[in-house]
Amino acid sequence: MVVSDETPTTRTPTIAVDAMGGDSGPEEIVKGVARASLDTTIQSLLVGDERRIQEILDGVPYNPEQIAIEHTVEHVEMGEEPKAAIRKKRRASIAVAAQLVADGRADVVVTAGNTGAAMLACSEHFKMIPGVRHAALASVYPRHTEHAAQDTLALLLDVGATVRCDATELVQFALMGNAYARRVSKVAQPRVGLLNMGVEETCGGEVLVEAHRRLRRIESINFIGNIEGNELARGRADVIVCEGLMGNVVLKLLEGLAEVVDDLAGVARRENWRWKLGIMMLASGFGKTRDLTDYAAYGGAPLLGFRNLLIKSHGRSNALAVHNAVKVAAKAVRDDVTGEIAAAIQALG
Amino acid sequence: MVVSDETPTTRTPTIAVDAMGGDSGPEEIVKGVARASLDTTIQSLLVGDERRIQEILDGVPYNPEQIAIEHTVEHVEMGEEPKAAIRKKRRASIAVAAQLVADGRADVVVTAGNTGAAMLACSEHFKMIPGVRHAALASVYPRHTEHAAQDTLALLLDVGATVRCDATELVQFALMGNAYARRVSKVAQPRVGLLNMGVEETCGGEVLVEAHRRLRRIESINFIGNIEGNELARGRADVIVCEGLMGNVVLKLLEGLAEVVDDLAGVARRENWRWKLGIMMLASGFGKTRDLTDYAAYGGAPLLGFRNLLIKSHGRSNALAVHNAVKVAAKAVRDDVTGEIAAAIQALG
Repeated sequence: MVVSDETPTTRTPTIAVDAMGGDSGPEEIVKGVARASLDTTIQSLLVGDERRIQEILDGVPYNPEQIAIEHTVEHVEMGEEPKAAIRKKRRASIAVAAQLVADGRADVVVTAGNTGAAMLACSEHFKMIPGVRHAALASVYPRHTEHAAQDTLALLLDVGATVRCDATELVQFALMGNAYARRVSKVAQPRVGLLNMGVEETCGGEVLVEAHRRLRRIESINFIGNIEGNELARGRADVIVCEGLMGNVVLKLLEGLAEVVDDLAGVARRENWRWKLGIMMLASGFGKTRDLTDYAAYGGAPLLGFRNLLIKSHGRSNALAVHNAVKVAAKAVRDDVTGEIAAAIQALG
Repeated sequence: MVVSDETPTTRTPTIAVDAMGGDSGPEEIVKGVARASLDTTIQSLLVGDERRIQEILDGVPYNPEQIAIEHTVEHVEMGEEPKAAIRKKRRASIAVAAQLVADGRADVVVTAGNTGAAMLACSEHFKMIPGVRHAALASVYPRHTEHAAQDTLALLLDVGATVRCDATELVQFALMGNAYARRVSKVAQPRVGLLNMGVEETCGGEVLVEAHRRLRRIESINFIGNIEGNELARGRADVIVCEGLMGNVVLKLLEGLAEVVDDLAGVARRENWRWKLGIMMLASGFGKTRDLTDYAAYGGAPLLGFRNLLIKSHGRSNALAVHNAVKVAAKAVRDDVTGEIAAAIQALG
């Protein structure tokens, strides 16, 4: 099922990593990059406070030939208002990382930092793919798989880059998500669904009816029709398209439920011997469901629509998650995701 | 905290129950009504196939003085296209139930049947409350409570009656949900939230920004601002307002996740002795989380905006759920929910 209809880039990609973003940056970010320098050939450019970064590197094993540091002292805090921050902090680590890619010194950005600031930095420094109207931030989420060969992750987009969308934008998001799933998840014909309130093509109001009508006619997409909320968990679709407002609420709801499950398990451990024993018993068989709360297993999700990619990791990313994000970013560059998107948008006219 | 600032109706309410709707109708519906005739003073008018209904009644204990039957042979199937069905089947049980309320022979409708058909039957037979632009279908969902006195259910509206909404409609939904929570859940000052992609008042695009601005100025509402997706599970708000498309996706997602959890538990029981033992151990401490999948505990949710109420139970309702739905319906009538909505809409001008 591996797709190879275009020659992938053979040169080793360079990843500009925002070392200062995320709840546990720079500590976990730098450690994740250090690990990637040992088990891959990926080049990383760590953007942030040089002394702080070097201190962390000095405490762990890493390959100095695959890691360089781009020094800057400014960075955007997680809770900071993105617009004001990006305007004021011209040398914020996320802005410098995007600039490095725009200048050709790196191929892709990885950040676990402030999502709004990351999107604004890309808007400022990257060019849009010709014909693309708005960017889409994707998110991968774990789902209930039906057979062993199925990817355990599905792609949901947009989750917040474009608040409200018209039919053209939703169709473009479908093409972009399709390209990413084909190239990175190696699903030859991803099943693309439109998030809606019913399966009938007449559902969901004008914009969704029109998007449905157009998607049905695009032969290069395996459009499986409307997907209802309950099918998000079931995992019938590989790529699910919706406007940013809806995607953001859905994504945070999934994250919130995972936290509630964690909390309940924690309370149970403290309060009730039956629960305590039960949870111990479950632990060894629990691998699969634990994925639901495991941000580290998938490294991050792409911001799509620009000529260059950014991979956004969860704010709570630990070293393992960053390690995975760097690998996902390298794969997306090697497999020329943006090239496939550009071709798909152009083919649609 | 019990609210009693208007004289409640003292006469015993009569409930028009759509006996033929739902996945397990008429069997479970009739049994639920039979049970309510024994432990309440509620009058029920069962609408459907008289012979079939009487057969079921003959097999269970019930109080014949509190149950009457309104005969009709037609009914709308669960999967049937609502518009065509309501147009064609003039004597469908849900249409007859709504007509009985419009004629003053009953006070409120309860149905576990086709949701679209139920909304259309109300549109056809009920009048809107003066000033209300569109109806909203609410849903109650179980949530993680922070203290013992808190209602374990929160109200989400709209979940599908009005696909896309402007700011005025969202504000009206807030007023309607607030009134229902005050009267039925007996929360004196329900915390009302606006479902959005961020907590900042500038989030979510024009319509949500405008709705936020107006809600903040309404003194009769305890508006706590924007609610993000993760807070739906946390339960910080008692009433959550959104447009129908979004609410429908969120509701079905919550239901879908509950099903996945059930499936996983089922697989675990079959396949792994550790899981099996673990689940047995957990069972006695599991009461609280089981609510997440237990449709029966809450009877149903209201369709709001009309001068008369309809309580929609889940399609899979069993006798216990119907029993609870009938009690919720009676309470909503006694506590004059529609009167409070009318007053709130009028006060806003």
